[in-house]
Amino acid sequence: MKHAYVAIMAGGIGSRFWPASREETPKQFLDILGTGQSLLKSTFDRFKKIVPLSNIYILTNERYRDLVKKQLPKLKDDQIIGEPMRRNTAPCVAYFAFKIQQLDPQAQLIIAPSDHLVLKPKEFRKTIKTAVYYTAGNDDLVTLGIRPVRPDTGYGYIQYLDDSEEGGTYRVKTFTEKPGLSLAKTFLESGDFLWNSGIFIWKAKTILESFEKHLPEIYDNFFRGIDKYNSEKEASFIKKAYSTCPNISIDFGIMEKANNVRVIPASFGWSDLGTWSSLYEHYEKDYYSNAVSGKRVMVYDAANCMVMAPDDKLVVLQGLDNYIIVDTEDVLLIFEKTEEQKIKEITDDIKRKKLGKFL
Amino acid sequence: MKHAYVAIMAGGIGSRFWPASREETPKQFLDILGTGQSLLKSTFDRFKKIVPLSNIYILTNERYRDLVKKQLPKLKDDQIIGEPMRRNTAPCVAYFAFKIQQLDPQAQLIIAPSDHLVLKPKEFRKTIKTAVYYTAGNDDLVTLGIRPVRPDTGYGYIQYLDDSEEGGTYRVKTFTEKPGLSLAKTFLESGDFLWNSGIFIWKAKTILESFEKHLPEIYDNFFRGIDKYNSEKEASFIKKAYSTCPNISIDFGIMEKANNVRVIPASFGWSDLGTWSSLYEHYEKDYYSNAVSGKRVMVYDAANCMVMAPDDKLVVLQGLDNYIIVDTEDVLLIFEKTEEQKIKEITDDIKRKKLGKFL
Repeated sequence: MKHAYVAIMAGGIGSRFWPASREETPKQFLDILGTGQSLLKSTFDRFKKIVPLSNIYILTNERYRDLVKKQLPKLKDDQIIGEPMRRNTAPCVAYFAFKIQQLDPQAQLIIAPSDHLVLKPKEFRKTIKTAVYYTAGNDDLVTLGIRPVRPDTGYGYIQYLDDSEEGGTYRVKTFTEKPGLSLAKTFLESGDFLWNSGIFIWKAKTILESFEKHLPEIYDNFFRGIDKYNSEKEASFIKKAYSTCPNISIDFGIMEKANNVRVIPASFGWSDLGTWSSLYEHYEKDYYSNAVSGKRVMVYDAANCMVMAPDDKLVVLQGLDNYIIVDTEDVLLIFEKTEEQKIKEITDDIKRKKLGKFL
Repeated sequence: MKHAYVAIMAGGIGSRFWPASREETPKQFLDILGTGQSLLKSTFDRFKKIVPLSNIYILTNERYRDLVKKQLPKLKDDQIIGEPMRRNTAPCVAYFAFKIQQLDPQAQLIIAPSDHLVLKPKEFRKTIKTAVYYTAGNDDLVTLGIRPVRPDTGYGYIQYLDDSEEGGTYRVKTFTEKPGLSLAKTFLESGDFLWNSGIFIWKAKTILESFEKHLPEIYDNFFRGIDKYNSEKEASFIKKAYSTCPNISIDFGIMEKANNVRVIPASFGWSDLGTWSSLYEHYEKDYYSNAVSGKRVMVYDAANCMVMAPDDKLVVLQGLDNYIIVDTEDVLLIFEKTEEQKIKEITDDIKRKKLGKFL
C-alpha cells in the first residue's frame, strides 16, 4: 500500500447539524456520536490501519488547520492541505491529484469524507484494499457502493451491471439522485442499486486524465501550477487558482459523465450521518427510543427524541414525541425530526437577520 | 392611613416556577412578567401610594435580606423583617402583629403576598382603603375576595352573604379549597363566590386576639418575646421562637375558624400568578398565541407556548403546541402546559438525585 494516498475531506461546515455543528467547529470535528472522539479522528484511525501514516492527508479549509492539528497531532504540517475557500469536491480532488502525482507518479488516491460512520472497520479495510488492488492494474474510477438495507430517500443510488464483475468491481450503469420513497423501494427490491458513499479510489494519473476530458477548465486551472506543487510557491498559487475555479462536485463533474466508472458493492455498516435522523438511528436509545447525549437529561413521557445537551446542563423533557432537541451555550433548537430538512431554511433566516454569530 | 402598616410577604421559594424561579432567587424577585421590574418592586410601588413608605415592611427569609435591600433601596434595615426559617403564614403574621402592636397600639395591618399581579392599581387602592376604614371601627378580620371571571380550579373560593353588607364588606359564609371544574362552574354561576386573594386587613389587636383564641400555641410562642420586640434581643428570640413554632397557614389556622371574618368583593385585575398557565394568560402573545420572553426567540409552526430564555440566547422552536419552554444558564425545561402540576414531582426527583444545586 505504499503508493496508496488517502485524502480525508474535512472542509464541510456541517450546516445540517446546526446548532451542534457550528461554522467554527463543524460536525467532523465533533464527537457527535458520543464515542469519545471526533468523526475526523475515527476516520483517520480507520485509514491508519490501511496505509502508512505519512500517506494520509487532510484536506480542509485553511481556517480549520489548527483544529486538525490539535485533533491529529501525529500529522506533519504538510499533511494538512488547507483550501483557501470552499469550492466543492472537484477542485479539491484535482489539487490533491496534481500534488501527489508529482511526489509519486505511481500514486493511487483514496478520497474519503471525514464525517461518515463505519461500524465494521475490518470489512471497510477489505473493501478499500480490493479497490486499491484493482485500480493498480486498471485505469478505472472506482467508487464504493453500499448495499442498501432500507429504501432511504436521503442517499444517491448507483445502479451496476450484475454480470460485469472483475476483481470485485462492477461496471456502473447509472447514478441516480435522491429518489422518492416509491422509487427507493423499487431500487431496494431490484437488488442492483447501491447507496453512493462518496468514497473513491483511483490512480492520480487516471483521475487527472478524467479531469482533462470532463472538466478541462479545472484541469487547466491546476495544471498551471505544475512547477509550484510541493514548493514554497504552492500556497499563493492555490489561493489564486481557487479564486477562479468553478464550484462543482466530483460526482456531477466526473463520475456521472465518465464511462470507466466501476463500483464495489460493500456492507461495512456505513452511514453518511448526514441528518439528525441518521445520527439518531445510530445512537444508543433508552426504553422509549430516546437518543440522549448529555449526562443530566431527565426524560418523562417523551419518546423517539434526539437530545443533545452539555454534560453540566440539567435538561427536563416531558411530553415530546419525535423531536430533535439540541442545547448549546448560546443556541437552543427544538424541532420535529420529520421536519429537519427545514433547519436549512432556519439558518438562512438567521443569516438574513444578521445573527451569523450563532451559525 | 398613618396607623396602617403593610406586611409584604416575600419568603416563598416559588417552586412552581422552577427553573425560572430558583431557591437563590425566587419568583417574587424576578421580572417574570417582563415589565422591567420584579413582582416585589411592583407590589411595593402599589402600597407606596396607599401608606407612608416608613409603614411598609417586607417579611422574608433572612437569606433574601440582601436581595430585598438591593431591589428596594429606600427601605430602612428594620423594615426588612427576616424570618430564620420557613413556617408558612400564621407564625409570620403573629410575629408582625406583636412587633407592630408594640410600636403603635392602634396599628392596622395589611397583609399581602409579594408575587401577585394587579392590573388596576386605582381599584386596588380603593379596595384597600375601604378595608382600612372598616377595620378602624370594627374588630373584624377582613379579606379581599376577587369577583371570578372564569371557573378557575386553581384558586380557593370564599362564599359571602349577599344581604350582610356593611361599609363595603360582607359576612363570609364559607371558605372552600380549590374545587373541581363542575363545582367551580356552579360557584361562578351562583354569583356569591369570590376567589381567595390572600390579602388581609385587620387591627393588630384583633388578629392577636384571634391567635389567642384559635392558635394559642403560636400566640404563646410569640407572646413570650413581648419585652424583646424592637430591641436588640428580637433576632435571637425570633430564631428560637420559630424553631419551636408549628407550620400552619393563616387561612387554615384562623380564617376558616373565626366567625368575625368579612370579605370585600373586588375587581382589580388580579392574578396570583401561581402557575405557568396563569402567567401565560397575562403575557402579551404573538399571532399564534405564543408568550415569549427573550429577545432572540424564533418560532416556527408553534402555538400556545410559554417561552422564557435569556435575551442573548438564540432559541429556535418548531412544531410545539401548548408547551412551557424555560431555558436558563444551567437548566432547560420543556413541559406540556397541561401537565405543569407535575413539575413539583420533577423537582422532588431532582432533590432525590442530589442535584439540589439546580433547584
